[in-house]
Amino acid sequence: MNQSHSPENVLLREDKDGAVFLTLNRPDKFNTLSEAMLTALQQELEAIAADPAVRCVVIGGNGRGFCAGHDLKEMRANPDHAYYQTLFRRCSKVMQSVVSLPVPVIAKVHGMATAAGCQLVASCDLAIAAQSASFAVSGINVGLFCSTPAVALSRNISSKRAFDMLVSGEFIDADTALEWGLLSGVTADSDLDAAVADKVKQILSKSPAAVRVGKSMFQPQRQMALADAYDFAGNVMAENMMSPDASEGIDAFLAKRKPVWEQPGR
Amino acid sequence: MNQSHSPENVLLREDKDGAVFLTLNRPDKFNTLSEAMLTALQQELEAIAADPAVRCVVIGGNGRGFCAGHDLKEMRANPDHAYYQTLFRRCSKVMQSVVSLPVPVIAKVHGMATAAGCQLVASCDLAIAAQSASFAVSGINVGLFCSTPAVALSRNISSKRAFDMLVSGEFIDADTALEWGLLSGVTADSDLDAAVADKVKQILSKSPAAVRVGKSMFQPQRQMALADAYDFAGNVMAENMMSPDASEGIDAFLAKRKPVWEQPGR
Amino acid sequence: MNQSHSPENVLLREDKDGAVFLTLNRPDKFNTLSEAMLTALQQELEAIAADPAVRCVVIGGNGRGFCAGHDLKEMRANPDHAYYQTLFRRCSKVMQSVVSLPVPVIAKVHGMATAAGCQLVASCDLAIAAQSASFAVSGINVGLFCSTPAVALSRNISSKRAFDMLVSGEFIDADTALEWGLLSGVTADSDLDAAVADKVKQILSKSPAAVRVGKSMFQPQRQMALADAYDFAGNVMAENMMSPDASEGIDAFLAKRKPVWEQPGR
Repeated sequence: MNQSHSPENVLLREDKDGAVFLTLNRPDKFNTLSEAMLTALQQELEAIAADPAVRCVVIGGNGRGFCAGHDLKEMRANPDHAYYQTLFRRCSKVMQSVVSLPVPVIAKVHGMATAAGCQLVASCDLAIAAQSASFAVSGINVGLFCSTPAVALSRNISSKRAFDMLVSGEFIDADTALEWGLLSGVTADSDLDAAVADKVKQILSKSPAAVRVGKSMFQPQRQMALADAYDFAGNVMAENMMSPDASEGIDAFLAKRKPVWEQPGR
Repeated sequence: MNQSHSPENVLLREDKDGAVFLTLNRPDKFNTLSEAMLTALQQELEAIAADPAVRCVVIGGNGRGFCAGHDLKEMRANPDHAYYQTLFRRCSKVMQSVVSLPVPVIAKVHGMATAAGCQLVASCDLAIAAQSASFAVSGINVGLFCSTPAVALSRNISSKRAFDMLVSGEFIDADTALEWGLLSGVTADSDLDAAVADKVKQILSKSPAAVRVGKSMFQPQRQMALADAYDFAGNVMAENMMSPDASEGIDAFLAKRKPVWEQPGR
Repeated sequence: MNQSHSPENVLLREDKDGAVFLTLNRPDKFNTLSEAMLTALQQELEAIAADPAVRCVVIGGNGRGFCAGHDLKEMRANPDHAYYQTLFRRCSKVMQSVVSLPVPVIAKVHGMATAAGCQLVASCDLAIAAQSASFAVSGINVGLFCSTPAVALSRNISSKRAFDMLVSGEFIDADTALEWGLLSGVTADSDLDAAVADKVKQILSKSPAAVRVGKSMFQPQRQMALADAYDFAGNVMAENMMSPDASEGIDAFLAKRKPVWEQPGR
């Protein structure tokens, strides 16, 4: 293992009003997903998953760009099949931990998001990018097809667009990424912090319990057959109706007043 | 049960040349899907499914909007887990009956389509909206995540767009809904009736048998693996080729004349 | 069997620098997929699949258009259920052979691509069309719903758009097909050859081994559950990392020089 930094240094965490801001912090290395970074991400995601006080997560990056994928230097220093299997398994676990996290995850993207960095954007529930951000799955240019990124990307954008990006390695700009469905929002570069803060504020204004219900049902039902998805969703919704927040929310709506949500305790 | 209206009143049915026009008729309640409305819809859909003379269905709404989802007042009057399970199961059955109906179903949307109303639009095969129509899955605003609507919505539009609508509760306009794939057409408000009539006329001009073949194969194959979908579709198409209408249609095409289709009898 | 031409004549093959250009060659019949054409396509696809020297495939058509689907005259001359089953099975096998081919397949589309012709476009990994090209699944107009084309089409474009095309039989133009995701590129009519040549050149500039990895993992993972797709993709990527081209590519990238890929031998 080449952990020249401790996990604490490569990934910053700031908590604010129930939102967790994670910042990839290897700015001199374009925030590549080194072993240390993957370990740190996995640890934070597991801590967040276990913490009922967290209500939403933002993942951004320090320095000139969001994330340039794997750390190629570290990979080449370990030319071993078992090592690579473990590495990709670990990275895939991080991505799936984002998908299965019980609260929404927002990618906050500036600069470049390439390879596994683009995969991380695709794996988040929402993604807001600066106008000048750009996206590529460029492993093909170094003889390494972005196979694991393809999994996330092809579940976000249409098949021919995904394959073209993967086989060409070419960049698309933020407006194109929005049009294709890889992003949920694009903003002027100078407004990125504010736009993400607005989305966080919007999520925090909702019932914490209902937002958790939503995240925990949305991603799993995507891969179910229609009848199974409806069985699952119907049961989830019946449970949700029995929650204090649903009673309060509907009563407030019918009385034309503002609802007061239950706040999760630590 | 709070059935203050009989099913006949909450849902209007008009038959015209093989097309059935269903109109949600609780205009003072934004056509919410009360128990009575769900019962009436289920009954009509089952009657239509059993009627070989029906060739296409239009679902619209009376009053200021298409449909505002569930009847929150009725729901709050029955604060019981088993009641809610039954209610969502019943509603999910209506939605799946639209999907599995043997003829195409067109949503005709004006005003607002929210929560299960937006789900109904997503569940139809085609959807034509007035320019001023708007769409939201806004349960999150009352502490009740739109879990069952999420099933239909996420099978119509891309994942991040669907999740953003679900977690924000925000409205999108008709042009956006068209661009994202939730609608098949948008028209000037004053042309909505005419645009829907044109689409109905177009469908009625086709072979009734072939249209039924199409509806009955299109939706099921969506959730099959590719090889299974091809096995299924190939068998369906071979059967279709043996029908009198395929012979007539191809002969007419080769002879450059207009085909005359078999008309279904009651 | 009505094989008035030998397979060699109905399908032309040209090889150039590892790219194979297949040209549907029944220009007087709008390149319809007669039995002879399907046989010829299947044979060529199987030969290509077994040939490690092939690096990408282009499918185009001679004459006024790309392909008008099945040969209706030939079909009507064989009014037999078993015949049709065999025919559609054979056609579905050709389409799936495109999908499972170990190298990328590009549709080069001019003029009309209808019914199984539109399905062929949908089945390719990439598709570049001339601005004046148009697309329809028009079997409904002859009483024969495009059931097998629906399988490919609905895996390229959104559900309501696909169903509307299938039930209306209407044409969409190339810009619309691009916007909806059926195409990966559109170009001025006079630039079609050049645009396809550029895309081929781009693919040929990549590591042949990595391109094969990509094609062979991209299509299968589309229909896997997320966790299965990640297991599969992770293993594929670990193998890919052990290849000489990945070592060379990454070393070249780190040294800021151009990589030199291994060339496949016959």
